Amino acid sequence: MTVHHTDVAIVGAGPVGLFAVFELGMLGLRCHVMDALSAAGGQCVALYPEKPIYDIPGYPVVEAQQLIDRLAEQAAPFEPVYHLGHPVTHLEAIGEDRWRLTNAGGAVVEAGAVMIAAGVGAFGPHRPPLAGLAEYEGKSIFYLVERREAFRGKRVVIAGGGDSAIDWAISLAEIAASVAVVHRRDKFRAAPESERRLWALAAEGRIEMVIPYQLAGLQGSGGQLEAVIVQTLKGENRTVPADILLPFFGLSMDLGPIAEWGLTLENKHIAVDQATCMTSRPGLFAIGDIATYPGKLKLILTGFSEAAMAAHAIHPRLRPDEVLRFEHSTTKGVPV
Amino acid sequence: MTVHHTDVAIVGAGPVGLFAVFELGMLGLRCHVMDALSAAGGQCVALYPEKPIYDIPGYPVVEAQQLIDRLAEQAAPFEPVYHLGHPVTHLEAIGEDRWRLTNAGGAVVEAGAVMIAAGVGAFGPHRPPLAGLAEYEGKSIFYLVERREAFRGKRVVIAGGGDSAIDWAISLAEIAASVAVVHRRDKFRAAPESERRLWALAAEGRIEMVIPYQLAGLQGSGGQLEAVIVQTLKGENRTVPADILLPFFGLSMDLGPIAEWGLTLENKHIAVDQATCMTSRPGLFAIGDIATYPGKLKLILTGFSEAAMAAHAIHPRLRPDEVLRFEHSTTKGVPV
Repeated sequence: MTVHHTDVAIVGAGPVGLFAVFELGMLGLRCHVMDALSAAGGQCVALYPEKPIYDIPGYPVVEAQQLIDRLAEQAAPFEPVYHLGHPVTHLEAIGEDRWRLTNAGGAVVEAGAVMIAAGVGAFGPHRPPLAGLAEYEGKSIFYLVERREAFRGKRVVIAGGGDSAIDWAISLAEIAASVAVVHRRDKFRAAPESERRLWALAAEGRIEMVIPYQLAGLQGSGGQLEAVIVQTLKGENRTVPADILLPFFGLSMDLGPIAEWGLTLENKHIAVDQATCMTSRPGLFAIGDIATYPGKLKLILTGFSEAAMAAHAIHPRLRPDEVLRFEHSTTKGVPV
Repeated sequence: MTVHHTDVAIVGAGPVGLFAVFELGMLGLRCHVMDALSAAGGQCVALYPEKPIYDIPGYPVVEAQQLIDRLAEQAAPFEPVYHLGHPVTHLEAIGEDRWRLTNAGGAVVEAGAVMIAAGVGAFGPHRPPLAGLAEYEGKSIFYLVERREAFRGKRVVIAGGGDSAIDWAISLAEIAASVAVVHRRDKFRAAPESERRLWALAAEGRIEMVIPYQLAGLQGSGGQLEAVIVQTLKGENRTVPADILLPFFGLSMDLGPIAEWGLTLENKHIAVDQATCMTSRPGLFAIGDIATYPGKLKLILTGFSEAAMAAHAIHPRLRPDEVLRFEHSTTKGVPV
């Protein structure tokens, strides 16, 4: 078993975890970054890579994937080592000042401090309980739109009543052969302006509203969908021809093993000291959406600031003899 | 006298003040922005417009002026009104919930809350005490480099021993006809790597070290410098031919009238509650470099986060009947 030794282990390779690599690097600290997903980016990449974000300072608008690419580029000079595709399952203290983390793939990282930047924890789509579902997943059933163009000319069925369902129905109506929205009632949980546009497109015949129906079955073969069976609460069936099914029933979120690391939690979040982002266990820090304190705002830009604060709180723990002469990056450049 | 009425008055149009316009705008609040300088951007624009910044999240590198341009663009949809070129001189409470600000140009703004984002306060260069100085300022004596190219082919004399003096000596050695560095001793206050490069260029004859000398006089006419007179502590004079003199003796900083607004100060900074950025006077908030609390980091990115926190703390004060359904920008877009 190879054990990797580093200054700081970061749990979570989302935007905040990536920026933590940079902030630690500026203070001369190196990192290993561990994430359950197979690519860096967290929710930004896994759930909405093409979605525009408007509240990153200095970016009037930026697509989620583009933001992640820039953050990874900013972190790269500090040569972070990524362990992706497996959740961290175990965390244990080694003596007083070291931590050992093990992921489900067997990678072991020992570090002098840990930053938990795990967002909402492990997350995945709510999957509809349909016979034969797995056969179609990734072929003609998708829980997120990675590339909108892939659905050009297709007959698309969208199930759900939230923002994702409505936003993608409106967007795909421009390029799909047909778009049908399956929802169990005629009320949606979405921005009023979006819902207004949805009904307007339905009135023009560009979106079919399949209401009040729920998903009941799948027809097709070899992973290729041919139709979706839907059903009313009274048991009336209907068949909707479909090449593609997009079920948007939200995310299941789970702190997973993190909940068992002995940290003080508040409503599924990790309580931290706002000035340092340190958790109830000295040496363990939490930043970004998973961290909470009075007045906490769950914004990416808040997580960036927390990454800087945690890095500055970690530095004297790992380098007690080094005086940190505080300097702006403009004075010293990137000290790789 | 015209009195402008708005939701929030922001004192300071630097990067943090500009981002506050955006954050307030996202919550439906409008602003007027007041600054002593004649352009938005604060120190970024006034002192180092072309200097690269490395620690803005998502920007591996960005020039200060470019960052300001993007932040102004991001704020623009919310139609901030700028009152530039005059410092705010008076702040007074009007009843319980309103504030009146007056600048030196006579503009009057009334607002329900105030965000002080004034950085280091009023600032300006330390000017050397030389006879006839004013005649040359802005013509052949400059306290900052707005455009490096303007010095191509010139005989440049740089005075000072800090990072600015050294960095510009190194940079201008590439394009100037000659560069001389006047300093009173052979020790510098600068990054060791920069000082090493300075002495290396001196050894190659590309920079002349005029040490130990101080500025003593100016020669020239009509604002055009011809030479700089320098002097040792013993009174020995020397004449250094020069087209351009760049005195880099640092900045004088002054809170100015802000110090008289009845706020709790700590070592020339405004003490705030970290969770809300509210000062000791309810309704007055401070963000960015001028604000302090335990663990405070003076970073632009920290100021961005403080702008978001202050905006969310101000909203319920100004719109007590409005329930703020917290949403990410990706859900609702920019609600102009």
